[in-house]
Amino acid sequence: MHWPDFVHIKEVGPRDGLQNEQQFIPTEDKVAWINMLSETGVKEIEFSSFVHPKWIPALKDAREVGRQIKRNKNVQYSALIPNEKGLEHALEVGIDKASVFMSASETHNKKNINKTIDETYPVLGNVIRTAKQENKRVTGYVSTVFDCPYEGKIAIDDVLRVIEQLIELGVDDVSLGDTIGTAVPIQVERLLEKVLYYFPAKNIILHFHDTKGMAIANIITAMQYGIVQFDSSLGGLGGCPYAPGAAGNVATNDLLYLLNEIGIETGINSVKLAEASTFIQDKIGKELPSKNLTYISEKDKVANEKVQPLRKREIIYYFLKDQYQKIRNKSS
Amino acid sequence: MHWPDFVHIKEVGPRDGLQNEQQFIPTEDKVAWINMLSETGVKEIEFSSFVHPKWIPALKDAREVGRQIKRNKNVQYSALIPNEKGLEHALEVGIDKASVFMSASETHNKKNINKTIDETYPVLGNVIRTAKQENKRVTGYVSTVFDCPYEGKIAIDDVLRVIEQLIELGVDDVSLGDTIGTAVPIQVERLLEKVLYYFPAKNIILHFHDTKGMAIANIITAMQYGIVQFDSSLGGLGGCPYAPGAAGNVATNDLLYLLNEIGIETGINSVKLAEASTFIQDKIGKELPSKNLTYISEKDKVANEKVQPLRKREIIYYFLKDQYQKIRNKSS
Repeated sequence: MHWPDFVHIKEVGPRDGLQNEQQFIPTEDKVAWINMLSETGVKEIEFSSFVHPKWIPALKDAREVGRQIKRNKNVQYSALIPNEKGLEHALEVGIDKASVFMSASETHNKKNINKTIDETYPVLGNVIRTAKQENKRVTGYVSTVFDCPYEGKIAIDDVLRVIEQLIELGVDDVSLGDTIGTAVPIQVERLLEKVLYYFPAKNIILHFHDTKGMAIANIITAMQYGIVQFDSSLGGLGGCPYAPGAAGNVATNDLLYLLNEIGIETGINSVKLAEASTFIQDKIGKELPSKNLTYISEKDKVANEKVQPLRKREIIYYFLKDQYQKIRNKSS
Repeated sequence: MHWPDFVHIKEVGPRDGLQNEQQFIPTEDKVAWINMLSETGVKEIEFSSFVHPKWIPALKDAREVGRQIKRNKNVQYSALIPNEKGLEHALEVGIDKASVFMSASETHNKKNINKTIDETYPVLGNVIRTAKQENKRVTGYVSTVFDCPYEGKIAIDDVLRVIEQLIELGVDDVSLGDTIGTAVPIQVERLLEKVLYYFPAKNIILHFHDTKGMAIANIITAMQYGIVQFDSSLGGLGGCPYAPGAAGNVATNDLLYLLNEIGIETGINSVKLAEASTFIQDKIGKELPSKNLTYISEKDKVANEKVQPLRKREIIYYFLKDQYQKIRNKSS
């Protein structure tokens, strides 16, 4: 089998993760968390979405976040941009990359963007043009490239058409999304066999959610085709509001475990990544789905249990020592 | 990539799953559950362990379970057999297959069986000989073929030596176990490349735990090498007492989702499998880790929430109708 030397991970937790969590994470926590992420060695962070706050209240503080985060020159900061107004706000606070988005499914696109696929292109076209004028790279997200919650299986030709249009409009890379997290490796194989006939692997990113637990298997399948760019979110944060029980993105922690154990370089320090995971897990206030994060949390719990009796003995020891001293002082 | 037409799943939940759960599941619940499993279409069930009850109290009722379960002629019933005494008990209540076990790691073998690897062979040899005389098939489990909680990475040559010895002693199949659930696909690849040079793929079973979330990826890797037999447990039941945070076997539900979506035959009815999963999940009294089971449970929750208001309206409607009738009856 084929294993690449390096994989580029885009951390989408602050955007795709948080946008699908129920509660609002305070701006200062988001900023602290993104600053931690910036120090993990990850090469790219999608820090927020400049979609109207009405649609994604969880990310209504995109501008504040963008202004307050401490930029690391080794990290590219991207954000989700729906239209020119959003781009304006994003450019104001500073982005390295703009992510535009649409769906390969007509119905999903309509429900998500309130436009037909054909009506969407001119809007994205304007964003892409302006972003390129500002010397920003642009990624085009394509949602539901495998399965759609409304239309079921999506025809590969429909996906190809959207990719072709986006590239014609000027995007640098295309991120193909398994939005509801139901794809299996044979679907990845079939899609990539056609996609890579027309487009080079270097411009294709894969974006998996892990609803059915297939994401890691899908990623190793994509690697067999030379794909080396993947989106993931810390701890597997997120979910999908349109599919009950649907899970967040593949966990960066699990992806990193895979890559580290195979010996594939990412630049990410797994200790720092674990710290950033625990930080956001505490803020969210529930256990995140990542198996590797769970493993660490459980080990910590066991370690704490083991430490406690010792700590108790220590307290008792100092108490007794103190009492003993008092008695001695009295008697002397 | 290479996808087989049929995969043989051995359901090990009643043995490997339950043996690692904290609480004792009453015999009648075990029996009811195994009877449900027998009707799912699964071809093989490891129903218990005939290890001394002192070592695995959770399965101390192996004989009662073996006696009481309703046998389906399309299912092969296997059990874990440590020695001749265990085999005697198992044969008394009826088994189709005997599973003997040892470890590729000297330390793990010593901790688990209290014998060196060389001391283990004669014990297993006796069991295998007697089982074969009784016309039973025998599977040899080899634990920690990738990583050992005590010794770390296990040398492939050590694994090969154990396989060779077991086959010489007369086992029909060998089940290679990622006991602590830490292996990644490149390890599967490296092991299988050597194993399949000496032994045919038809006699090799793979047995993955899912601690690090790599099991499905490891399974599709094994399929690329022609492996078509896998062990799994319902819902991902179980864990490993020797590794804090370590998870159970790969979930049959997740494996079945993978196979069904690819179009690989298993004979298993997924609706019946989901019912059997919910049954044991309720008995265990905690959410099992399978993503596909979680997905179903969440959908059920949402469905119930949606049904409730309607049901409330219905109750109010019948209450009002009743009141109205009474008033009418009085006034008439």
